[in-house]
Amino acid sequence: MTEKIIPIASENAPAAGEFKSLIPDEETASRAVLPFPNSSRIYVKGSRVDIEVPMRAVKLSPTLRLDGSQECNPDVFVYDTSGDFGDPQKTVDIRKGLAAKRSSWIQERGDTEELAGVSSSCARERASDAALDAIRFASKRNPRRAKSGCNVSQMHYAKAGIVTPEMEFAAIRENCNRKAYAESLKALDDKSRRMLLAQHPGAPFEAAFPEEVTAEFVRAEIAAGRAILPANINHPESEPMVIGRNFLTKINANIGNSALTSSIADEVEKLLWAIRWGADTVMDLSTGKYIHETREWIIRNSPVPIGTVPLYQALEKVDGKASELTWEIFRDTLIEQAEQGVDYFTIHAGLRLRHIPLTAERLTGIVSRGGSIMAGWCIAHHSESFLYSRFEEICEILKAYDVAVSLGDGLRPGSIYDANDKAQMAELETLGELTRIAHAHDVQVIIEGPGHIPMQRVMQNVEAELRDCDEAPFYTLGPLVTDAAPGYDHITSAIGAAMIGWRGTAMLCYVTPKEHLGLPVKEDVRTGIVTYKLAAHAADLAKGLPGAQLRDNALSKARFEFRWEDQFNLSLDPELASSYHDETLPKPAMKQAHFCSMCGPQFCSMRITEDVRKWAKEHGVSEEAALEEGLKAQSAKFIEGGSELYKDV
Amino acid sequence: MTEKIIPIASENAPAAGEFKSLIPDEETASRAVLPFPNSSRIYVKGSRVDIEVPMRAVKLSPTLRLDGSQECNPDVFVYDTSGDFGDPQKTVDIRKGLAAKRSSWIQERGDTEELAGVSSSCARERASDAALDAIRFASKRNPRRAKSGCNVSQMHYAKAGIVTPEMEFAAIRENCNRKAYAESLKALDDKSRRMLLAQHPGAPFEAAFPEEVTAEFVRAEIAAGRAILPANINHPESEPMVIGRNFLTKINANIGNSALTSSIADEVEKLLWAIRWGADTVMDLSTGKYIHETREWIIRNSPVPIGTVPLYQALEKVDGKASELTWEIFRDTLIEQAEQGVDYFTIHAGLRLRHIPLTAERLTGIVSRGGSIMAGWCIAHHSESFLYSRFEEICEILKAYDVAVSLGDGLRPGSIYDANDKAQMAELETLGELTRIAHAHDVQVIIEGPGHIPMQRVMQNVEAELRDCDEAPFYTLGPLVTDAAPGYDHITSAIGAAMIGWRGTAMLCYVTPKEHLGLPVKEDVRTGIVTYKLAAHAADLAKGLPGAQLRDNALSKARFEFRWEDQFNLSLDPELASSYHDETLPKPAMKQAHFCSMCGPQFCSMRITEDVRKWAKEHGVSEEAALEEGLKAQSAKFIEGGSELYKDV
Repeated sequence: MTEKIIPIASENAPAAGEFKSLIPDEETASRAVLPFPNSSRIYVKGSRVDIEVPMRAVKLSPTLRLDGSQECNPDVFVYDTSGDFGDPQKTVDIRKGLAAKRSSWIQERGDTEELAGVSSSCARERASDAALDAIRFASKRNPRRAKSGCNVSQMHYAKAGIVTPEMEFAAIRENCNRKAYAESLKALDDKSRRMLLAQHPGAPFEAAFPEEVTAEFVRAEIAAGRAILPANINHPESEPMVIGRNFLTKINANIGNSALTSSIADEVEKLLWAIRWGADTVMDLSTGKYIHETREWIIRNSPVPIGTVPLYQALEKVDGKASELTWEIFRDTLIEQAEQGVDYFTIHAGLRLRHIPLTAERLTGIVSRGGSIMAGWCIAHHSESFLYSRFEEICEILKAYDVAVSLGDGLRPGSIYDANDKAQMAELETLGELTRIAHAHDVQVIIEGPGHIPMQRVMQNVEAELRDCDEAPFYTLGPLVTDAAPGYDHITSAIGAAMIGWRGTAMLCYVTPKEHLGLPVKEDVRTGIVTYKLAAHAADLAKGLPGAQLRDNALSKARFEFRWEDQFNLSLDPELASSYHDETLPKPAMKQAHFCSMCGPQFCSMRITEDVRKWAKEHGVSEEAALEEGLKAQSAKFIEGGSELYKDV
Repeated sequence: MTEKIIPIASENAPAAGEFKSLIPDEETASRAVLPFPNSSRIYVKGSRVDIEVPMRAVKLSPTLRLDGSQECNPDVFVYDTSGDFGDPQKTVDIRKGLAAKRSSWIQERGDTEELAGVSSSCARERASDAALDAIRFASKRNPRRAKSGCNVSQMHYAKAGIVTPEMEFAAIRENCNRKAYAESLKALDDKSRRMLLAQHPGAPFEAAFPEEVTAEFVRAEIAAGRAILPANINHPESEPMVIGRNFLTKINANIGNSALTSSIADEVEKLLWAIRWGADTVMDLSTGKYIHETREWIIRNSPVPIGTVPLYQALEKVDGKASELTWEIFRDTLIEQAEQGVDYFTIHAGLRLRHIPLTAERLTGIVSRGGSIMAGWCIAHHSESFLYSRFEEICEILKAYDVAVSLGDGLRPGSIYDANDKAQMAELETLGELTRIAHAHDVQVIIEGPGHIPMQRVMQNVEAELRDCDEAPFYTLGPLVTDAAPGYDHITSAIGAAMIGWRGTAMLCYVTPKEHLGLPVKEDVRTGIVTYKLAAHAADLAKGLPGAQLRDNALSKARFEFRWEDQFNLSLDPELASSYHDETLPKPAMKQAHFCSMCGPQFCSMRITEDVRKWAKEHGVSEEAALEEGLKAQSAKFIEGGSELYKDV
């Protein structure tokens, strides 16, 4: 089983002295996870003392009423995926990793056991390679696995009617803008409360959204296969979250080094940067030399679920020769990664031998890496993909650790030309077939989707996915709605992402400005995440998720009232908003100014409106009737009084 | 009539020595309008010698086939709004302005006359103010006006069945990716031609799109009021273009200085920068000191239609006091600007006294500058807006110069909370009423739209506009689909823009990253324009405009074939695409490399696919049947032969 595994470690061990820059230093965390201005970390408690859900409370300044009085503006709560890194009261030593908060929940269930050591050949080899000591994460914990005959997936518990602490945690997080916020609104007067709570009706799925997400609702959605809660028992550091179309739309950020660039330190920094900006999950797509070690550093420091594509590592083990891949090597890789704590695996099991000829007439062939690797294997062996034929065995592994499966779309289109073609749709049907197998094993499933889709075809993708895959959560890469703008593909894809999210896609995989061109650096990660956070939020607004509009309303109210700092702080990127303002109007006083730089002091439409409203109020004008009848006399008085709608600042 | 006009010029004359930096220098044009790599300027000729429509031909390198042969890839044509600035064979002296190419067309029609001098009081005063000599554009041309009793609008000609050279010019430009491209495709083999021409079906309006846009089609659309061709007779430097939902989706870029920042030189540079990146029209929203002089510099150097909001200047004339505005001052401003050559005016004539109370319960009141100025005026005078009551007189002026009217949405929502409310919809109905008045005068009309709309409400806006305004072209600002991301509002709005463009909005007004925060600088203009070009293009793809998909197909083909330079050059922003690639892989050889930096040399899915396809071809495998039957033997041979799908570079 192991004879084909290339002893990567010894061969590829870095030269002496090369180590220091490869692994994260003590400063990494403090560089990457800076606190946001005027925000504080709070915790919402659950039904047991060890359920404490972190949120960020954005403090707002009071409204200065025109009569000189002040009106309090309540904190706005934002759910916070940055874990203990985002708590200024706590210090995380990244060389030791995060606290294993879920350990007691996992052990209490009594259906897992601690192993004496790692089970996979690969992990054993790497563990015994002294050359890797210097870059190895100093983890002492042994892996856990389900006891024989047990199934430890959240779906298994959900189907049995068990509400886990994980489900409750996720439910509280979903309520961030519902329950917790509703509390703080009690201090407000009626009109302000109405304004902040209001939102547009008309969502297509509105009926399905409860006013408050309960742990029981989370359970029911997971049991139905409409949602997943990725929570590997070997990743007890993770903070539970739920992915499904009746919850907030989530986003994933891809990180990972390649054979050409990047170090472990860079990738850990990208992880921390990603969670600071709000990534809900992170996929480690590393393909470089220290793939096993990089992953360990990432998982031990990640409060969010980590996804991988195990095939990438399996291919490394056969020195890049797809035809030499075997089920045994792949299986060993699954176990290796499951015992490290990967929360979901992308597995391209839907690409079958029979689908390959369907791609021959494509403009851009097979662009998925996993898809093309497996296509190469199938042709070389003239054999059905082992990912497909061994899928039941894969499920056996997944349910022993609670790894969710993300069924990869190996035949996703790589261009507008290829969108929604026969190959893509044939694979999607197979993904449906695999979904039913996984669900029968109580393995949690999400379905990956494209890629490149013109706008008029977006809806067709969602409909086909819901129909073919029994409503399993959809997880799409964008999609890009045009191929014509490399360098701007975070935007071409955010258009498709917002639209497909509105129609019910549960998680959106981000695309950075470097897509198709290069490897994203830290700033690209930020741009990609904020862009996808806004797309996901736009989707939540359009779906009519209760509470989703609170942040927009609070921000718009701040904007209208010239509370500049509040406007910045409520933005998805407070730092950028503030710096853009400062570029034009750098003086601190300008942030209190009742005008903005677009118009200048005499020209501000918001100021004019405020004056109009004030005037209308003073003169008792609030109804059209009043205007029509009694205004003429009053208008004379107004002109007499100076009629200066615009006062110099 | 003129007693209230503040003699701005003399009072505000800059101090000696301040002038030099205010006006553009000789370098401005060469700095702003650099040629794109591997592109050449071509001209498509029309039915008469003086119709020459500029396009940019992007030269592509040949495909290197796996058998060693080469396949030619035809030039891709891109319509080009940069006028003579974009022709490397020509030198434009911006102190003299562009050639007046349309002069002969205008004069030939015999329905206009040259005036002895400017007609407006304001223009006369400024012309005679010696203090402005140093910053004044040295234009010697007298304005033209319709002869008494004549109507010189393109709509008037269109209704009379006359096809003008302007209409033919615009038609040829629309065909950029249809006719001209079809010619060059003749050189290709069948399969390549099919691939490049193909596009997704399923556009909602597809039936309305002719395979080739004829001048007669342009005429008919203008006559029906479904399209406009903005072409002031005093802007003979402009190159005609058509705006309507059966044509390519257009974009507008706003520029303009404010009382606080920016100089004439900066604004001219922004104009040139805007047309270099592809703006279809430019609005000069200046509100600063030298508003008249700035506009003259802009119009004389603009090959694209220029729009303004005359109310901004009228307000300057009354020192910012809205209540002192009069019809006479506004009328003088219209004439002043019409004689300078402004091609379309935004006029907020739909905001009526009766609408104002409908805004009292809004979260963000009246955010349109024009709207709030007029609301202030209406309340101060308790009188109907003079823009509304004098609308017929306005039309008389517009048709004497062929200025199109863009009916402003003074009550557009300033937040998601206020979207599609009573005030907005009531004003839209009034805009419909005004559309019918303007159309009766053969005045060309477009309708401005919001602003801020959640996704599920976008379609409702288009439907209401088409219904209420007799299908006059819709012209929207974004819309932003969430308020939560200041600093990223080019993206929040590009989502709405692409969607509303798909549904039939004819022109999209760009939003830059500085929206709500500051005044856009040159780089923001670039980001805003490219973002809107991609949104407009995505809309054209989704509408199924014939030929729209050519650029996507050519770019994706280049990407798949590792023609890196071609991929960059076909991008809407070749420079950014290229620089992003260079960040990761700086060496020139990497641009020929058959892998991209995301994956590294052994891991490129496109390379794998190419190898799979090659292999399939060599072994005669193109049908599923062949695979199922004969593959086993061949696969053995393949493995024997090395089975290296991935070769080191």
